Amino acid sequence: MRIAELSRRSGVSVATIKYYLREGLLPAGTTTGSPNQATYDEAHLRRLRLIRALIGVGGLSVVATRDVLAAIDDPDVDAHYLLGIAHRAVAPPRRPVPDAEAWQRARTEVEDLVRRRRWCISPDAPAMDQLTDVVAAMRALGMDELLAAIDGYADAAQAVAGYDLGTVAARAATVPPGDPQRRALMVGAVVTGTVLGEAMLSALRRLAQEDASGRIGPGDTRGATGTDPETA
Amino acid sequence: MRIAELSRRSGVSVATIKYYLREGLLPAGTTTGSPNQATYDEAHLRRLRLIRALIGVGGLSVVATRDVLAAIDDPDVDAHYLLGIAHRAVAPPRRPVPDAEAWQRARTEVEDLVRRRRWCISPDAPAMDQLTDVVAAMRALGMDELLAAIDGYADAAQAVAGYDLGTVAARAATVPPGDPQRRALMVGAVVTGTVLGEAMLSALRRLAQEDASGRIGPGDTRGATGTDPETA
Repeated sequence: MRIAELSRRSGVSVATIKYYLREGLLPAGTTTGSPNQATYDEAHLRRLRLIRALIGVGGLSVVATRDVLAAIDDPDVDAHYLLGIAHRAVAPPRRPVPDAEAWQRARTEVEDLVRRRRWCISPDAPAMDQLTDVVAAMRALGMDELLAAIDGYADAAQAVAGYDLGTVAARAATVPPGDPQRRALMVGAVVTGTVLGEAMLSALRRLAQEDASGRIGPGDTRGATGTDPETA
Repeated sequence: MRIAELSRRSGVSVATIKYYLREGLLPAGTTTGSPNQATYDEAHLRRLRLIRALIGVGGLSVVATRDVLAAIDDPDVDAHYLLGIAHRAVAPPRRPVPDAEAWQRARTEVEDLVRRRRWCISPDAPAMDQLTDVVAAMRALGMDELLAAIDGYADAAQAVAGYDLGTVAARAATVPPGDPQRRALMVGAVVTGTVLGEAMLSALRRLAQEDASGRIGPGDTRGATGTDPETA
């Protein structure tokens, strides 16, 4: 198909498609006769949908998307390693931590949690730092009640991770071992599951919060005006 | 305290504190004698820690942080309404949806889910649109296995929302009804719980995924090289 049809079928503008081509996110089409008349196939359409999901719904940057796509395309990258790349791509940028001692105490709390749950985690996993940042910030803000529920949070996270990995296994089961399609299916499931699964969980938590908050009722808080709005 | 001490105790640079003062995130200090000698108190320190947590750990923009702080400071805003403001602040920017029909089908799926779970949700909740975007993207990518687990995801989200709201209630219980501190405590818990709780859940899910992925083992995927890396 021509670029105009690729644009129509994907819902991505021609200008954006050309940008993805220039940035190396989308492989070049097959040139026919004139250089401005490249043609594209179904694989381009699928790749374009994946790019839109990662950037538009998953919130990944163009650079992070390129890293993830390169890992998907590399046949030497296995699914477990790819998970690490996907996690690095979605990891929020870190800021310098003001209080090194408090951060180290939070790190110990996180390491205790990992040990308590018998999770096997590589020490340089970006999520270890991410969780430590959150725990340190919560302690600094005096959010001890929420930190007391961290094992409940971890139970929920573990249940969801079970679904995520089950999805990958279900994908793999549709193709016999050794089939070249198998790896591509699995790595695709890992990446999209990490990025889109996170967006799904986040939206569902907000809906469940709204429901739970509505059940408590506004009467419990309205009218009790605060004098110290700094207290968080 | 002077700005230099506020900087030392909060770990935020003097330049950044001045930026927050200019942008209206941090209230001005009390001026003493010379205009460059304003003094700050513990409330400024607490507010600064809250700003750093929202921006640095929660990933909020300065504009979104200002909206959230304005809502916290407004005594007419109750905790349930504030939850909506916090959700809007953390909602990812939306992109135009390419396929309006597919989006509408995804919306029906989301509405069915909300009905099935007997969740009470306002129709304009940003999380409804957010979840619809995710479901539409997953359907377009053929991620039907993960969507089949959406009720399992919703169970986990509901469990976590229970902890979140329990935290708010626990905070409120420390102060008698009618006490002016009560509202400030609750709204603070709602905002920080929404933003930091999300970062905590996200980090825990990644750790649980890494553990689950490691247990499956790399042997299942390595060596099965793909020929169609477009397949996601």
